[in-house]
Amino acid sequence: MGTQTALGANLRDRASTMFGAIPGETPEIEGNTLTKAKVELGKMLFFEPRLSSSHLISCNTCHNVGTGGHDYLPTSIGHGWQKGPRNAPTVFNAVFNAAQFWDGRAPDLAEQAKGPVQAGVEMSSTPDRVVATLKSMPEYVERFEKAFPDAADPVTFDNMALAIEAFEATLITPHARFDQFIAGDETALDEQEKQGLALFMDKGCAGCHTGVNFGGQSYFPFGLVTRPGGEILPEGDKGRFAVTQTASDEYVFRAAPLRNIELTAPYFHSGAVWSLEEAVSVMGSAQLGTELTDTEVEAIVAFLRTLTGDIPSVDYPHLPVSTAETPKPSDIIRN
Amino acid sequence: MGTQTALGANLRDRASTMFGAIPGETPEIEGNTLTKAKVELGKMLFFEPRLSSSHLISCNTCHNVGTGGHDYLPTSIGHGWQKGPRNAPTVFNAVFNAAQFWDGRAPDLAEQAKGPVQAGVEMSSTPDRVVATLKSMPEYVERFEKAFPDAADPVTFDNMALAIEAFEATLITPHARFDQFIAGDETALDEQEKQGLALFMDKGCAGCHTGVNFGGQSYFPFGLVTRPGGEILPEGDKGRFAVTQTASDEYVFRAAPLRNIELTAPYFHSGAVWSLEEAVSVMGSAQLGTELTDTEVEAIVAFLRTLTGDIPSVDYPHLPVSTAETPKPSDIIRN
Repeated sequence: MGTQTALGANLRDRASTMFGAIPGETPEIEGNTLTKAKVELGKMLFFEPRLSSSHLISCNTCHNVGTGGHDYLPTSIGHGWQKGPRNAPTVFNAVFNAAQFWDGRAPDLAEQAKGPVQAGVEMSSTPDRVVATLKSMPEYVERFEKAFPDAADPVTFDNMALAIEAFEATLITPHARFDQFIAGDETALDEQEKQGLALFMDKGCAGCHTGVNFGGQSYFPFGLVTRPGGEILPEGDKGRFAVTQTASDEYVFRAAPLRNIELTAPYFHSGAVWSLEEAVSVMGSAQLGTELTDTEVEAIVAFLRTLTGDIPSVDYPHLPVSTAETPKPSDIIRN
Repeated sequence: MGTQTALGANLRDRASTMFGAIPGETPEIEGNTLTKAKVELGKMLFFEPRLSSSHLISCNTCHNVGTGGHDYLPTSIGHGWQKGPRNAPTVFNAVFNAAQFWDGRAPDLAEQAKGPVQAGVEMSSTPDRVVATLKSMPEYVERFEKAFPDAADPVTFDNMALAIEAFEATLITPHARFDQFIAGDETALDEQEKQGLALFMDKGCAGCHTGVNFGGQSYFPFGLVTRPGGEILPEGDKGRFAVTQTASDEYVFRAAPLRNIELTAPYFHSGAVWSLEEAVSVMGSAQLGTELTDTEVEAIVAFLRTLTGDIPSVDYPHLPVSTAETPKPSDIIRN
């Protein structure tokens, strides 16, 4: 017991320094003051299917707050039943990521929110259509005025994105057992979970999956040591290379944030792996050049399951009624 | 004023007898005792995308509680982006309809719930797949046991439907201004709205759109006097004829319930008409053989807008995590 307690305390200090806990309160966002009016508007927009040209798809379709902030799909289904190229990351705790998307092409959630709305394979709308849609409903106009009181023209595509970011900042999952452990509750993790945490740090996982989100902070080549097969790492998707056009960024992706990871199968940007055990094992060989034993994999997975926090409560918003001016749903498939 | 008050009181008595108010409390359902455990389970199932084979579509996709209990589409988009043949009716107050679907082919909401889950163009699942999905998640098994404590095998397709019906029974919209009016608040309707109500009864609208839901009680030929064009009444959809195989049921449909009608454009089983004014006008000529004047149409529409009640509050449910046994999403298009 003495040794274990000592290991526990030592573990706790190391883990506390390396990761940290999800805060209990919504964090502040630089350049986007969170007001009640803005968060509430953002929630409405997050659930607003009329932001898509089909009127079928909202942010919540793929980043479902009822299922871990994502869908249970390898890659999401979008406009015209087209498939996106990459697995939808969870919206939970996304505010703590250094940048958004698997290739980090958006610096923050507001910039991210503009992507899917316009992507032909996702919501397939345009900024003009979005603004026309929102301006067609008096309640939205009023709510934008309250959320952006200093704006001369409050109903804009950029402000839509800021409001969605404000709501998404509230979607955090504090009080995971891991967080209770580093707050001092030695009993929050059992022995296997503590061993998993120690392995996670000692084997090198934490080299990439670091910070409060256990990832989401920087970019690394997938297949650092051994490149996995094309079913896991499709050849056509060169990751961050598409953003930087730098040869060394080929097959480079953002280290996936691991908070609530047990809720967000399937795994990897390809969404090719459904089992968390298999994902950990693939990471061992591809990134660390080590064959983790079954016992090690089990311990790491047991630890990862302690990263599940309190799921946020969301009241379903009541959205304004369409008017004669609201653009009609459209099925047209672009690009 | 004297005359108006007398008209008001007379109107109120007539309207009260003919329609009645939506109750403030969830109604009882014969053969399906509503318990807290069953309603909560039903809510989870209503929002459960894994009831569809694609993992994309839940009941809420087309019967969206944030947008009047329906989608804003002429006909819904389903599995593989296929379109259903008819406009999705609102789930709000559906418990008060005598039967479900535009052709009344389901006697109650439980029977109705089984339809879309299995329809190839909607959720495209099967009872076996649904039961396998639900049994793969221990939390669902537990919740079915609590919701159906007397069942030897609680996780069944029929019990899924009963739980969904239990939740849907809570989706009622009391306290519409019309309901306040018949409860005695003379000021709840203005003069134009009262005139609209009088016209609604005197012109014959209430002959079909009767009862607490202003419709949903029985079946009538669309085009009783003059058959509208094929854009509004498509020739290929013979309505209740498909259920009864009786010649007199050709182009016979359930009289649409008109509660919250301002929230549920586009209108008719074809979803072909976006304007409530146009819908009222079409009904005048097609069903009543009368050309309503613009003033009459405006008054009737003003009255219809008083049928919007309090929208129910729904907390988004937290759905259980998929397990290794949960059937994987499937894109296969059947039929």
